[in-house]
Amino acid sequence: MASTVCRWGILGAANIARKNWKAIRLAENATLTAVASREPSRAKEWIDGCQAECPFPAAPAACNYDDLLKRPDVDAVYIPLPTGVRREWVVKAANAGKHVLCEKPCASNAGDLRTMIDACRAKGVQFMDGVMFMHGKRLPLLRSVIDDGETVGQLRRIATQFSFAAGDDFLKGNIRVSSALEPLGALGDLGWYNIRFSLFVMKYALPTKVSGRLLTEHGGGGATVPLEFSGELFWPNGVSASFYCSFNTELQQWAHVSGTKGSVAVRDFVLPYYGCESEFVADRPVFNVKGTSYHWESHPKRHAVTEYSDGAPDAQETNMIRTFSALALGGRPDPVWPDVALKTQVVLDACLASARNGGALVEVK
Amino acid sequence: MASTVCRWGILGAANIARKNWKAIRLAENATLTAVASREPSRAKEWIDGCQAECPFPAAPAACNYDDLLKRPDVDAVYIPLPTGVRREWVVKAANAGKHVLCEKPCASNAGDLRTMIDACRAKGVQFMDGVMFMHGKRLPLLRSVIDDGETVGQLRRIATQFSFAAGDDFLKGNIRVSSALEPLGALGDLGWYNIRFSLFVMKYALPTKVSGRLLTEHGGGGATVPLEFSGELFWPNGVSASFYCSFNTELQQWAHVSGTKGSVAVRDFVLPYYGCESEFVADRPVFNVKGTSYHWESHPKRHAVTEYSDGAPDAQETNMIRTFSALALGGRPDPVWPDVALKTQVVLDACLASARNGGALVEVK
Repeated sequence: MASTVCRWGILGAANIARKNWKAIRLAENATLTAVASREPSRAKEWIDGCQAECPFPAAPAACNYDDLLKRPDVDAVYIPLPTGVRREWVVKAANAGKHVLCEKPCASNAGDLRTMIDACRAKGVQFMDGVMFMHGKRLPLLRSVIDDGETVGQLRRIATQFSFAAGDDFLKGNIRVSSALEPLGALGDLGWYNIRFSLFVMKYALPTKVSGRLLTEHGGGGATVPLEFSGELFWPNGVSASFYCSFNTELQQWAHVSGTKGSVAVRDFVLPYYGCESEFVADRPVFNVKGTSYHWESHPKRHAVTEYSDGAPDAQETNMIRTFSALALGGRPDPVWPDVALKTQVVLDACLASARNGGALVEVK
Repeated sequence: MASTVCRWGILGAANIARKNWKAIRLAENATLTAVASREPSRAKEWIDGCQAECPFPAAPAACNYDDLLKRPDVDAVYIPLPTGVRREWVVKAANAGKHVLCEKPCASNAGDLRTMIDACRAKGVQFMDGVMFMHGKRLPLLRSVIDDGETVGQLRRIATQFSFAAGDDFLKGNIRVSSALEPLGALGDLGWYNIRFSLFVMKYALPTKVSGRLLTEHGGGGATVPLEFSGELFWPNGVSASFYCSFNTELQQWAHVSGTKGSVAVRDFVLPYYGCESEFVADRPVFNVKGTSYHWESHPKRHAVTEYSDGAPDAQETNMIRTFSALALGGRPDPVWPDVALKTQVVLDACLASARNGGALVEVK
């Protein structure tokens, strides 16, 4: 009899993993078997902290990375390890027969990601990147509104910003600005979401050309890390998308989608604001001329769902774990997930290549 | 005794001029003496239509352009003539000793605009471009919020979109897509506002570098007109601004200003939506980590003023006429207005030069 519960292991006691700990706890088709750190004692300490806040009936085991992958009671692994070492551990996990939920940016470059995805495919295990908003309840509604032919009409422009002000301590110590561990910096950590959202709007059609600008970098020489980045994506049907991501700018996570008939605006596309109804606003403005005066009228329509992203049973991260667990248990990997992860990385790579070449247009291949 | 009422003439019976007709009627320090068209009969017809809607006690006289400029009872002229012929008539008006309120884009290029401004300066008459939002009641409040040091903190990023879907008829017949009359197309008609707003936020410091992309053009050969354009402005202190303008995309007129502490969003920065309170939203989001979960909280604060833009006594266009009339009557031209118009045109020119050169960075001089 096939199991109805996916048994998880976490490779790397990272801060972001606390959120997925809770999501695994809340998803009825998932449980957590083991957590690995470089030293099992460190994993143990982390587990104790998480258990105190959100306990599993039995505390997960603490081990090191290799031992976790050898465990027969682990079906799937969540890998929040730094990007710089992710290829190694994703490939090892796949070769050990584990399904892989991989933090973003998935890899340092698309070549590495192809290697990782190929390893998963060869072993018949699921690969997915950990983009939580893909699993939010808003997304199907947003899809239907964008596609209804009336609200937006023909798509023309997408604009997104995802930023937060990291502060000086972050810039000194956080691995997200280490060229060895996180070579893509803010572009990988934040721009991944900008690009993914734009691809989502475009139903995952790849742009044919992109450009990018490194607005602020950290470090010197060839080992700089993007701290602030803007890019633009161009599709052959005339749609374009601009994005901006930054560790220097206080939180903004807005997206505008506009077309020939109207627009849709989301102010918190990455992580729904806590305690707010998660919503987006569709607007069909009207231009009126009356006699010697004229005016524009705005006719906004709000589409709201109640969605918290703090480990609620139906939070987007819980849905992510739930969906992934079902795929892992089903034994038939869904090729869409590695495909959209790879497309995101390919576009990201091309934007960075453009920026390194003075902002020239780069063809996406 | 100096007059307390500025006597206006309108050079060109354009649709936009209907709005300023009403504004002149409503400003207590202004009146309208004459309206010129190529044929006085056409001016007469236009005057009759406007009088029926919003009458002056005595109907303005109908004349042709040259005759209007000869009239001693005209102190100031509003020139909504097409951009392609504007230099000629602005220079003639200045030489005739008339103060000049000039529609935007002021000129086909910055060289022409310098000629126009020089002519005004030589004759001691005021020059101003007809950017109505510069005279809205929101602007001083927006300035103080951006500058308060807490709401936005240090500026990092400006993003704006101004677009409307012009439709097929427009693209076939409207002068705004004629390469001879409106060579700057949507970049001139709409991008002028994007650039001006960004300059306003930056207290009119010129960006040192810009880039631009012609996303859609109208016509063929060297005489194409921009229909859809994106650009990016870069200041030496690290602030950047992206903008998008389009005749292909339904109305959007939003602006985001973000910095190290928070952001300000305006959804109708060009023309306040009719029947809505004119507002902007300042947001100081907070990132909280609690136990195994974490969340972002948004703390938006709305700054609203009641402001209609349909010819109300305190509408932005009425304020524009009021301010200009006072300057004309005062006899001491304010050099700030020609300066900000020229800066807008210089940046616009540089963006277009970049676009014509494949999007390469262009230095602003």
